[in-house]
Amino acid sequence: MVSSPLIGLADIEAARARIAGHVRRTPVLTSERLDEAAGASLFFKCENLQHVGAFKARGATNAVFALSDAEAARGVATHSSGNHAAAVARAAALRGVPAYIVMPEGSAAPKLAQVERLGGRITLCAPTQAAREAAAARIVAATGAAFIHPYDNPQVMAGQGTAALELMEDAADLDLVLAPIGGGGLISGVSTAVKALRPAARVIGVEPAGADDAARSFAAGHVIPVERPDTIADGLRATIAASTFAHIQRGVDAVATVSEPAIVQAMRSLWEALKLVVEPSAAVPYAAIEAGEIDVRGLRVGIILTGGNVDLDRLPWTTQ
Amino acid sequence: MVSSPLIGLADIEAARARIAGHVRRTPVLTSERLDEAAGASLFFKCENLQHVGAFKARGATNAVFALSDAEAARGVATHSSGNHAAAVARAAALRGVPAYIVMPEGSAAPKLAQVERLGGRITLCAPTQAAREAAAARIVAATGAAFIHPYDNPQVMAGQGTAALELMEDAADLDLVLAPIGGGGLISGVSTAVKALRPAARVIGVEPAGADDAARSFAAGHVIPVERPDTIADGLRATIAASTFAHIQRGVDAVATVSEPAIVQAMRSLWEALKLVVEPSAAVPYAAIEAGEIDVRGLRVGIILTGGNVDLDRLPWTTQ
Repeated sequence: MVSSPLIGLADIEAARARIAGHVRRTPVLTSERLDEAAGASLFFKCENLQHVGAFKARGATNAVFALSDAEAARGVATHSSGNHAAAVARAAALRGVPAYIVMPEGSAAPKLAQVERLGGRITLCAPTQAAREAAAARIVAATGAAFIHPYDNPQVMAGQGTAALELMEDAADLDLVLAPIGGGGLISGVSTAVKALRPAARVIGVEPAGADDAARSFAAGHVIPVERPDTIADGLRATIAASTFAHIQRGVDAVATVSEPAIVQAMRSLWEALKLVVEPSAAVPYAAIEAGEIDVRGLRVGIILTGGNVDLDRLPWTTQ
Repeated sequence: MVSSPLIGLADIEAARARIAGHVRRTPVLTSERLDEAAGASLFFKCENLQHVGAFKARGATNAVFALSDAEAARGVATHSSGNHAAAVARAAALRGVPAYIVMPEGSAAPKLAQVERLGGRITLCAPTQAAREAAAARIVAATGAAFIHPYDNPQVMAGQGTAALELMEDAADLDLVLAPIGGGGLISGVSTAVKALRPAARVIGVEPAGADDAARSFAAGHVIPVERPDTIADGLRATIAASTFAHIQRGVDAVATVSEPAIVQAMRSLWEALKLVVEPSAAVPYAAIEAGEIDVRGLRVGIILTGGNVDLDRLPWTTQ
């Protein structure tokens, strides 16, 4: 149960027990070459190797399995064009309940196919936030399905935090943990876990300069929505919620931003050195290191690699 | 010590102890999507995540560390344009001895840069097998360096076999193990380990139809060198040696071949489903499954993903 307005370590530990067996314990990888370049010890938590190719499987699975049997029986719903849609569809299939997924017309064919393959019932809508929300609201009203927001949901935040529990077990004595910020669900869970178990470690969120709502909100002390997100990191275009901002204010030490060229360069460096397919959003924290936005020299740094869903026909270094 | 003409399990176990701490225990990854497509349980041993991005680190490290101090002090030498060169350079640096690496003029700049970064002393030569061997022989004569052949060397074969020990520990009760065949060093070590520890499991080697010396030799019962290897799988263009062929005859149940389009398709499928960067050679065993060359339905199959060193500017599905 999540009773406090802010999640705590107990919520994340409960999430871990709830999703065990349904999500992978992903490996933590290192690279002599990247360590040498950074002058630091970097520990990459490979959530690109998670089911559905993203950490989103953790939060969605926790939220779906936290429902009562009566709630779950009516199904679950969400609107998303990205990894959360697949994660909710997969979690619902595991629980044996229907998943109603609202996706915008024009979504990439592989994303639609993945949700279908996972058994999600897709409703297409116009590609606007208002149309998405209206379509999801209609489905919820008609079916009684539980709406699973991609980040403004304490069970989702707690689920995402389980990645940090595993990271800290596999990489001891971290000085610093980096995660990207989109809507803020991941950093909310991660910062909660890190500050509870290793208060000496700093937590820094990183976002694209073209979608810097968290950085500006953090500086201002209140949520400033992103106006026109403009970044290749499509997983990080969302605006933080009041709930995730409260967690950021509590547990995040700083928010850094990185340029688009730095994101593309970092993505390529990670592919070359780690031999991992990571999506642009996942490269954002390492971009801050590679571009010198964060001084990590001599530190032990944990980095969440958030996902690996990319269009292999349109790689940024071959199309730009 | 390797005293028999053929290596045995004891040689591989000795190799494992010798290289512990110098090479990674790589993860074994699975994919619900690939399992569904194959109707089987596939266990991928991720040697693309090994140091220098390939299983070659195992054999080279074992060979370099098996030298006496007096032998090692004179350095080590090899000729290679590929992963073995980097593996020897790295192993020599770990042992603190010089590595003399003969590489053909026209080698890709990243490969030269990697060997240099690892401290290898590069000698360029004309891009012919004769020129390579002559240049290496001159260096060995002048320095007394120990020549480390990429596969016709029992310590190299034993080192490569350690990948199979780990695979069998992480994926129990395998029915079948697949590995690509180039010069045959990997399959020699792998088949030795598998047949010793799990005799009920079959071992199938897979190679490109355009470099099918092992398949033709296996059918004929004697080594038939590859004439003009023509395949994108640049790690598999070498001809098997008498020594590796003897191991293939002893421990390999069948040799399958795959087409070039099947290799490219398999490489892409692995990138998409596993989120791993694998090189064309590494995709060859899975290509045999995806193309239906091997019937794996209902089986538990271990697959060695051999390496991840690719030119990200020239991916086969964007350049073909």
